[in-house]
Amino acid sequence: MDKQAIKALIEAHPARTALDQAFYTDADIYERDVSQIYLKSWLYAGHISEIVNIGDWFLFELAGESVIIVRSSEDQVSALLNVCRHRGSRICLEKKGCARRLICRYHAWTYDLEGHLRGAAHMGEDFDKSGISLKKIHTEVLDGMIYVNFAEQPAPFEPVREGLTECLRPYRLENARVAHRQTYAIEANWKLSVENYTECYHCAPSHPEYSRGHSLAKPEARSAALMDEVMSRAQACGLSDKSVSRIYLDAEGFGADYAYERYPMWRGHVTGSEDGQPVAPLMGDIKGYDGGTTDFQVGPVSFALAYCDYVVIYRFTPVSLHQSECDISWLVNADAEAGKDYDKDRLVWLWDVTTAADKRIIEYNAEGVKSRYYEPGPLSKMEDYTWKYMSWYLQAIKP
Amino acid sequence: MDKQAIKALIEAHPARTALDQAFYTDADIYERDVSQIYLKSWLYAGHISEIVNIGDWFLFELAGESVIIVRSSEDQVSALLNVCRHRGSRICLEKKGCARRLICRYHAWTYDLEGHLRGAAHMGEDFDKSGISLKKIHTEVLDGMIYVNFAEQPAPFEPVREGLTECLRPYRLENARVAHRQTYAIEANWKLSVENYTECYHCAPSHPEYSRGHSLAKPEARSAALMDEVMSRAQACGLSDKSVSRIYLDAEGFGADYAYERYPMWRGHVTGSEDGQPVAPLMGDIKGYDGGTTDFQVGPVSFALAYCDYVVIYRFTPVSLHQSECDISWLVNADAEAGKDYDKDRLVWLWDVTTAADKRIIEYNAEGVKSRYYEPGPLSKMEDYTWKYMSWYLQAIKP
Amino acid sequence: MDKQAIKALIEAHPARTALDQAFYTDADIYERDVSQIYLKSWLYAGHISEIVNIGDWFLFELAGESVIIVRSSEDQVSALLNVCRHRGSRICLEKKGCARRLICRYHAWTYDLEGHLRGAAHMGEDFDKSGISLKKIHTEVLDGMIYVNFAEQPAPFEPVREGLTECLRPYRLENARVAHRQTYAIEANWKLSVENYTECYHCAPSHPEYSRGHSLAKPEARSAALMDEVMSRAQACGLSDKSVSRIYLDAEGFGADYAYERYPMWRGHVTGSEDGQPVAPLMGDIKGYDGGTTDFQVGPVSFALAYCDYVVIYRFTPVSLHQSECDISWLVNADAEAGKDYDKDRLVWLWDVTTAADKRIIEYNAEGVKSRYYEPGPLSKMEDYTWKYMSWYLQAIKP
Repeated sequence: MDKQAIKALIEAHPARTALDQAFYTDADIYERDVSQIYLKSWLYAGHISEIVNIGDWFLFELAGESVIIVRSSEDQVSALLNVCRHRGSRICLEKKGCARRLICRYHAWTYDLEGHLRGAAHMGEDFDKSGISLKKIHTEVLDGMIYVNFAEQPAPFEPVREGLTECLRPYRLENARVAHRQTYAIEANWKLSVENYTECYHCAPSHPEYSRGHSLAKPEARSAALMDEVMSRAQACGLSDKSVSRIYLDAEGFGADYAYERYPMWRGHVTGSEDGQPVAPLMGDIKGYDGGTTDFQVGPVSFALAYCDYVVIYRFTPVSLHQSECDISWLVNADAEAGKDYDKDRLVWLWDVTTAADKRIIEYNAEGVKSRYYEPGPLSKMEDYTWKYMSWYLQAIKP
Repeated sequence: MDKQAIKALIEAHPARTALDQAFYTDADIYERDVSQIYLKSWLYAGHISEIVNIGDWFLFELAGESVIIVRSSEDQVSALLNVCRHRGSRICLEKKGCARRLICRYHAWTYDLEGHLRGAAHMGEDFDKSGISLKKIHTEVLDGMIYVNFAEQPAPFEPVREGLTECLRPYRLENARVAHRQTYAIEANWKLSVENYTECYHCAPSHPEYSRGHSLAKPEARSAALMDEVMSRAQACGLSDKSVSRIYLDAEGFGADYAYERYPMWRGHVTGSEDGQPVAPLMGDIKGYDGGTTDFQVGPVSFALAYCDYVVIYRFTPVSLHQSECDISWLVNADAEAGKDYDKDRLVWLWDVTTAADKRIIEYNAEGVKSRYYEPGPLSKMEDYTWKYMSWYLQAIKP
Repeated sequence: MDKQAIKALIEAHPARTALDQAFYTDADIYERDVSQIYLKSWLYAGHISEIVNIGDWFLFELAGESVIIVRSSEDQVSALLNVCRHRGSRICLEKKGCARRLICRYHAWTYDLEGHLRGAAHMGEDFDKSGISLKKIHTEVLDGMIYVNFAEQPAPFEPVREGLTECLRPYRLENARVAHRQTYAIEANWKLSVENYTECYHCAPSHPEYSRGHSLAKPEARSAALMDEVMSRAQACGLSDKSVSRIYLDAEGFGADYAYERYPMWRGHVTGSEDGQPVAPLMGDIKGYDGGTTDFQVGPVSFALAYCDYVVIYRFTPVSLHQSECDISWLVNADAEAGKDYDKDRLVWLWDVTTAADKRIIEYNAEGVKSRYYEPGPLSKMEDYTWKYMSWYLQAIKP
């Protein structure tokens, strides 16, 4: 679909209505999605606890791109394109590792941890290594969470940091550790995955495990009294009662969204777990369970749920036009020991079972939107967030 | 390939010659195949015995489309697009089932058996359900066989009914039952599958099992005397000796083809089975074996073979440019019991072994027609039917 | 990418630099690769010892094409397109076989071993078989090695024959036998496979098994003295000390490249094997091990390594845009017996382990060159041959 047609489609798009089929099936639109959204937004890459020592690295991959996230010095994280400057080979071939130098296995071109070319044999005497480095993208670390941005001049990250620091402080995420990380392959355009995450209209019919404890699933049953109850306990537990939301079209910079919001769990539930009871030690400075839970967001496609005892961070990425990935990290206090302080199976249960269900749901959605008879329908009151995301999306890719 | 090029290719197509490569490999032509042929023709969906009770349903799928064939009332069969009117999810996820309401599992939008939206939560007070229904396509039931048509105004089905009712009456297919149904995936453009079905030039070299009993495989050996013999017995057995053929360019309406023809089996064979002997009780009102067999056709891609003791119904559908499916139903009298009145393995043997061979043959054909060196060759005298189909096909998709 | 864009890209291509991304990812360029290179060059098909008897045949497949290489008479090899002239089916369905007639299994059209149609039933009285044959491509046999060319008027093969006959004579390849043949599927554009083969810059880092014995891997350590030593022994062993190289832009005809070159192995190594010691009887007329080894090439994508005791022949072919194959034949003297005169596992060890490593390397290269951030880098002094090949390639496909 050429630019004119894409533009016309976007301009004609009715409000509060599901997206037109072309946004899920057109290869040119997909390329715009990648270039205008993913290569310009702040994206969650991983947590500092995954690269504790200098030289530790892991890969962050999306849409055919591979980035080496490496601890390049005590204080520094570098994000280097995993593409050799010689003939383009991948350099790091595993998912993670540790190295003093990054050496391309093909012809042994050797780079330091900041990506500068340090060795290349047989290149002749007039060869100047100094101008050659692995391409580097921007990184920011917020409370131990590493965010990256492919843009040459990304939107400033400072507003995100300023907006969230106080709210996140009690969790002490810089002292957390990834207890489990898992990637779920979803056979669907990435937008169907994000749409699914951004609304809880489907929670009641599709997620009985989640709906048992979380009031988001049934907003009509949620009373102001319940909210007041939680908030009155929050401060004593050391938790912020502030809300912030600068997302999508309201973000301070493109792809630099942030939000933080608390809401009550149903009585008898204090965290996201099979029985609603704690599954790990209280995080950071938190002193008790106030009966609430937290959603926070950084960038347009990275979301988190912060419970008093653990945090899960979601990230959605495209793989190809009809494939996406949902990457989930479960964080606990760094000093919590598996098998002693927490049971990993209990810790991951809720969001594993919920994501497995979402994968199925999203894939059935993907089948339907490809139908010649698919006609985008009206969104419900519970899809406001989704429509915020869609409105921004349409503007973001508009030629 | 643009419309002008397709038109030119069709106009230049030599008579009685295999199709040009582009008809098997061009994505635009494939889309025309679907829109101009499959979405406008009468197609066999299944048999009424598969949805005995109100709320029973099964899916009919082709070319990425999914249709819910449901018994919506005592007397009515509805065919509803399996695409939710909200955000497009598939509604029915299994191959068959039974339900009082059709409920989308994603957000619980709920439809009645005629497709009218009956429930949708959180849509706001000004939301008007009454205008929203699952899209519906046309259905017709002929002697228990359910045919569907996606066109808004399909060619009338009445001529088909009138043309076939008398011939089919002795089989009493409205009292039949599907003893077995199987779908064969074929890695080939759908037209190669249909071409294969429409000629028996390949029967002698490729289907020894079929050729043992069926005189179509060797027309040169078939005598008028043998035909007369069969016909003279037909009436006593309660079978019609009429032939009708209004197919392809001779059909009374587009995609509303019908044909009925009897021809002799070789002596010693009375039905299509491994030994030529009966494999199930006589069907309907038929009183004996006359030594003949029957081909009948409804629509351009649904064919049937009616023996005195069972009927097989074939349907060919596209899956994608290079994938098709052959769906076969084996029908016996509704009161025939498996294991007692018939042995299922014996019943299905001939057409299973023959279709497995055809799958291989068609797939090798598909490999060859993709060659840069493929040049369509002349058709034999035994490919008249195939050429009838091809001539119609070329007209049908001509821009 | 249209012809203008391809032309502009080629004209702007910097010297001694890796290829631009489009050459690895563009579907139109891939089609040019096939039509301008593979369908016009001399390609190794196999060895005469694989079709000893009249009617013996094997298939040569590339880029969706299938060719039947058949011994059509005592003295003749024919190469026939494996596409029936009727409706295009593949005729030979296995990888190899033996037949007096080539019979299409679909409708039994029957061809003789030179491809002339000899039988076709039911074609009517005015059907003239005589004008119908399987399409045939050119073949040449050089010392038992069968080369084919799809072009209608290929570049003459005589210069190749004249250029190599004397050098190859001692090996007596017309008396050799294929001891093992294996095809390695490589998930990468074919050019990445050929680039890999044409340089030994990667040998030291990637192939320790090869580098132990072969001085190509470390040219800087190779002394003129070592070369003189080998050459001085060569004549006594019956080996030629001539070098020839008419390749790529220097070839006498398009796609009719040839080269022959000897170079020393490291001391203690006399052949390509795990321990550097012989793995099979001396080939042909060779009288001893001179400590050298031989590279020779016929056509642009068929290479060979000739040791004193065995010869390996490589051929690279495209399968699709992102898939290629490396086919390797190991040749020994025809009278050498497996298990007695040679151990097959020892014989194939070096080039199997090396090719398995190359497959991985090439596939990681393929991932990287698809990156939006891939930028072709400078070639080393050890990639001269690769640049020769690339320069020719760019000219060859230039519109």
